[in-house]
Amino acid sequence: MKRYEDSYLYRLRHSAAHLLAQAVTELFPGAKLSIGPPVENGFYYDIDFPSPLKEEDLPRIEAKMKELAKLDQRILRQEVSLEEARKLILDETIPGMGEAVAEYKLQLLDAIPSGEAISFYDQQRTDREGTLHRFMDLCRGPHVDSTKEIKAFKLMHLAGAYWRGNVKNKQLTRIYGTAFETKEELEQYLVNLEEAKKRDHRILGKELGLFMFSARVGTGLPLWLPKGATLRHVMTDFLQKEQVKRGYEPVVTPLIGNTQLFIKSGHLANYREKMYPLMAVDDDEEYALKPMNCPFHIEIYASQMRSYRDLPVRLAEFGTVHRFEQRGEVAGILRARGFTQDDAHLFVRPDQLVSEFIAVVDLMQAVLKKLGLTNFRARVGTKDPESDKYVGHDDNWQAAQSAIESACQKLDLAYEVSPGDAAFYGPKLDLIIKDALGRDWQMGTVQVDYNLPERFELEYTGEDGKPHRPIMIHRAPFGSLERMIGLLTEQYAGAFPLWMAPVQVQILPIADRHNEAAEALRVRLMDEVYDSRPVRVSVDDRRETLGKKIREAQLQKVPFMLIMGDNDIENGTVGVRSREKGDLGAMTMEQFLAQLVG
Amino acid sequence: MKRYEDSYLYRLRHSAAHLLAQAVTELFPGAKLSIGPPVENGFYYDIDFPSPLKEEDLPRIEAKMKELAKLDQRILRQEVSLEEARKLILDETIPGMGEAVAEYKLQLLDAIPSGEAISFYDQQRTDREGTLHRFMDLCRGPHVDSTKEIKAFKLMHLAGAYWRGNVKNKQLTRIYGTAFETKEELEQYLVNLEEAKKRDHRILGKELGLFMFSARVGTGLPLWLPKGATLRHVMTDFLQKEQVKRGYEPVVTPLIGNTQLFIKSGHLANYREKMYPLMAVDDDEEYALKPMNCPFHIEIYASQMRSYRDLPVRLAEFGTVHRFEQRGEVAGILRARGFTQDDAHLFVRPDQLVSEFIAVVDLMQAVLKKLGLTNFRARVGTKDPESDKYVGHDDNWQAAQSAIESACQKLDLAYEVSPGDAAFYGPKLDLIIKDALGRDWQMGTVQVDYNLPERFELEYTGEDGKPHRPIMIHRAPFGSLERMIGLLTEQYAGAFPLWMAPVQVQILPIADRHNEAAEALRVRLMDEVYDSRPVRVSVDDRRETLGKKIREAQLQKVPFMLIMGDNDIENGTVGVRSREKGDLGAMTMEQFLAQLVG
Repeated sequence: MKRYEDSYLYRLRHSAAHLLAQAVTELFPGAKLSIGPPVENGFYYDIDFPSPLKEEDLPRIEAKMKELAKLDQRILRQEVSLEEARKLILDETIPGMGEAVAEYKLQLLDAIPSGEAISFYDQQRTDREGTLHRFMDLCRGPHVDSTKEIKAFKLMHLAGAYWRGNVKNKQLTRIYGTAFETKEELEQYLVNLEEAKKRDHRILGKELGLFMFSARVGTGLPLWLPKGATLRHVMTDFLQKEQVKRGYEPVVTPLIGNTQLFIKSGHLANYREKMYPLMAVDDDEEYALKPMNCPFHIEIYASQMRSYRDLPVRLAEFGTVHRFEQRGEVAGILRARGFTQDDAHLFVRPDQLVSEFIAVVDLMQAVLKKLGLTNFRARVGTKDPESDKYVGHDDNWQAAQSAIESACQKLDLAYEVSPGDAAFYGPKLDLIIKDALGRDWQMGTVQVDYNLPERFELEYTGEDGKPHRPIMIHRAPFGSLERMIGLLTEQYAGAFPLWMAPVQVQILPIADRHNEAAEALRVRLMDEVYDSRPVRVSVDDRRETLGKKIREAQLQKVPFMLIMGDNDIENGTVGVRSREKGDLGAMTMEQFLAQLVG
Repeated sequence: MKRYEDSYLYRLRHSAAHLLAQAVTELFPGAKLSIGPPVENGFYYDIDFPSPLKEEDLPRIEAKMKELAKLDQRILRQEVSLEEARKLILDETIPGMGEAVAEYKLQLLDAIPSGEAISFYDQQRTDREGTLHRFMDLCRGPHVDSTKEIKAFKLMHLAGAYWRGNVKNKQLTRIYGTAFETKEELEQYLVNLEEAKKRDHRILGKELGLFMFSARVGTGLPLWLPKGATLRHVMTDFLQKEQVKRGYEPVVTPLIGNTQLFIKSGHLANYREKMYPLMAVDDDEEYALKPMNCPFHIEIYASQMRSYRDLPVRLAEFGTVHRFEQRGEVAGILRARGFTQDDAHLFVRPDQLVSEFIAVVDLMQAVLKKLGLTNFRARVGTKDPESDKYVGHDDNWQAAQSAIESACQKLDLAYEVSPGDAAFYGPKLDLIIKDALGRDWQMGTVQVDYNLPERFELEYTGEDGKPHRPIMIHRAPFGSLERMIGLLTEQYAGAFPLWMAPVQVQILPIADRHNEAAEALRVRLMDEVYDSRPVRVSVDDRRETLGKKIREAQLQKVPFMLIMGDNDIENGTVGVRSREKGDLGAMTMEQFLAQLVG
């Protein structure tokens, strides 16, 4: 698969950014342009306006862009020398150029390493009178061929952005926009965006009582409320069972470790900036919150002699790790400072690498399928052939890369190869999920590691009676539990599938006199098993009207409601309402249980 | 129930310590006595010997003690003035006294606060010739009446002990002994001690693959191996289900918190010495590993408006906490630095306190019963009537104490009241379990708390529409998961009951050609449910003889073995062996499943 950076869409959005700059130049004389790249869902341009811009100005700019786009300006690349470039940037006769607005472009020009090509993109058209109109911008490109191709775009919103991302510099105005190849795609994107707002996991997380944050507890540290904690439990329980079936062994390791461990693993040397401050007890005793589980699993592997027959050893843990993300990078449960990885480390012989890799990816596919995430692809990070920063023998790397690719092929998994995206210690595979709204989420990951077994001098005794070094595979199908729950909340807009729902059945006694029977039913239902787990059931015994209870259960997206009144208690039935199908009428418990399972 | 300190046994052991001192004085002239108290399972005496004592000397001392005991020496209390005491201690004519051996006794005398009674215990007898023999020791007492009562005792072992526990002081020789009222009790104790060695959870924990420690990971930080991790999971899963049935709601809260939280809760002021060093990010952002879960649960309670109808709110968490125990106090998984509490906090109205307390103790009893721990009693810690350190109104305390006592009575739970054992914030109940070897283990606890709701200004809206303050109940039926697993390992000598066993069924294929069928059976069995959880099953597919596989499964104390050979595969049967009953013959899977459940 093609990378976004190499796609037509990427070029189109880049050209849309230039079109935006051209429109601004026409509408706001004196506006100084800086940079305008394509980004994940569109593009932006950072501009120093002579007077503050308002959101209300965007439609006017957009209209001007439309007008300019239709003019079918050719977009031409022009390579020049440093000398010529400086002259062009200061040329008052070319729109976008001239000394008055050149401040940032000159700095950009100075930052281009000598020897590198300097290029401008020139939007040209000749009008009916034969006059040449142009707009030029210093830019590496590439771009589309004509502004006519920019048909489906929209300016989204404004933001502030410091020049070169440095708070000491001036704050510029960033105009965000998006562009697509067709109007239909743009429409869909805008509709999805509206829908995404409604599905925002931060809003739903609060409404559904999944998690909360507290300033007193600290930044990036979610507190999981009863329903969220239950959801976590359901998900870990499911994955645990799936893993045990596939020969994984669960372990539980400490949340902190002596710094000796992280010196040995290299984390203290290479990962220190993401670690919380160390806890020094005295000169020779110091602890750190673990940022990763690997060194602990290695200690378990190394705690006993291993023979070639014992391998693969697959140690799995729902391991809570802490990473000190910058305050600005923390984002709800999608990027928390304390989070739980569905981690495992496989210690394998070289001859097991391919089959174990395939088995890992197969597990990940099975997991995603069960979660209802069926639209995903893989990105295979391989060596940058130019670089020599990698550890491990070339033939090992070759074996690992072909193991990864053959796993994808064998499992019919779409993948793109991304050279240079490997870790320094081995190649990897990332899973990218497309959600119900067409957004990409980078989730689970598998990495092959030759480095840690070396650092910790891990061994197994081979069939030849001699010591050999195992290879490690790191993997996490969810990625993190927090992030996956964030994704699933948005994917399902909070209406989790039955097996996942924190409350599967809510019993609604009509009046206080039905509460006792409702409670008895709750306890009885808890002894039933659905999908290998006890049924999760609650009672709404508040003194509210039935109508209100139903509405609230509906808002809470509970899959089944059981209504209990006088008749029901007399007849031994319940009134069943399904989240999807509405009122299903009175049923006996046996009938309902059949409904639940079916 | 009587406290140990008030018992006859306690006095008897104290007198046995004096008897030991008398024997040493006779056998080792120049030996300087220091202190000799009764302790949990016996007594000791710390003595400064003129030349090193060896374990081989103990039988000789024990023989001398027996001889002296039989002499029926009366043990008399004698109260004296400071002046007289000094004179007595220096009196060369009395055995045990005299300047040459007075060093420690004089220091002990000086340490007695002025105004406090100074007493000696004098062991006297008059021989046939009418001569008075005596042995005196400075001692607060009390003692038994005659050395004749000390019939069943034994010297156990030697240890070093610094005078006054200070490493800067001289190291004395500590002689440990034990004593009982009857020879039978002593015999049973010694048998149990041998048995206890075999059951030592540290040894069994290693043999059964439950947990390990690593110097590189750090002191007091257990790593749970696959079987131990599974055992943890089974236990938490069981308790979670039991709790949800009883209206608890699970939560998951961070492992660390901003120090602001612990300042508010008072932990930083009152519990700092048990906390790991703080992690300061910058001047206004600092974190601490949580030593307790309470403040986090309070944040959840406080995150929304609560009405009197919402109470009680019962928040439960298997919360991992960290406490910096001194290195010498750390003891395997019984006292770790990182451990998991089966914690919950109940926020209740005053009128709910009694019923909620009863429900908590009922849950704890149900839990212990399920764990097979049926021999337990309660210790109720109440206010010290002399002290004014307690927070909260007297009538609240009265209500709480009578709630605790009436819970014990209603639930037919034996209890002793221990005045002065309450926390400063409320009375409490501790559960003390007697294990299979007759040893006491202090485990679960319930505490009533008026303090934290006050500090955090917790509220609920009463029926009167006005704000009221809830009461908190802290409780942990296991106490800690680690400690409970330690106890259970020793209780069952590793042969955990079926529902608890990490591996319930082990499949033993006879030869390699049976491995595939064994693996298929494993996966099939995992879809069966026993005690609301998937059956836990493993395959021993090593190339070992069946005999060896059976022996090892027996050592691993697996409840059921399923042997698979040619005939079995052909006939669709398995050869079943039970841990307790041995060979049960060939069965179909249906027959075996009936056996498993039955």
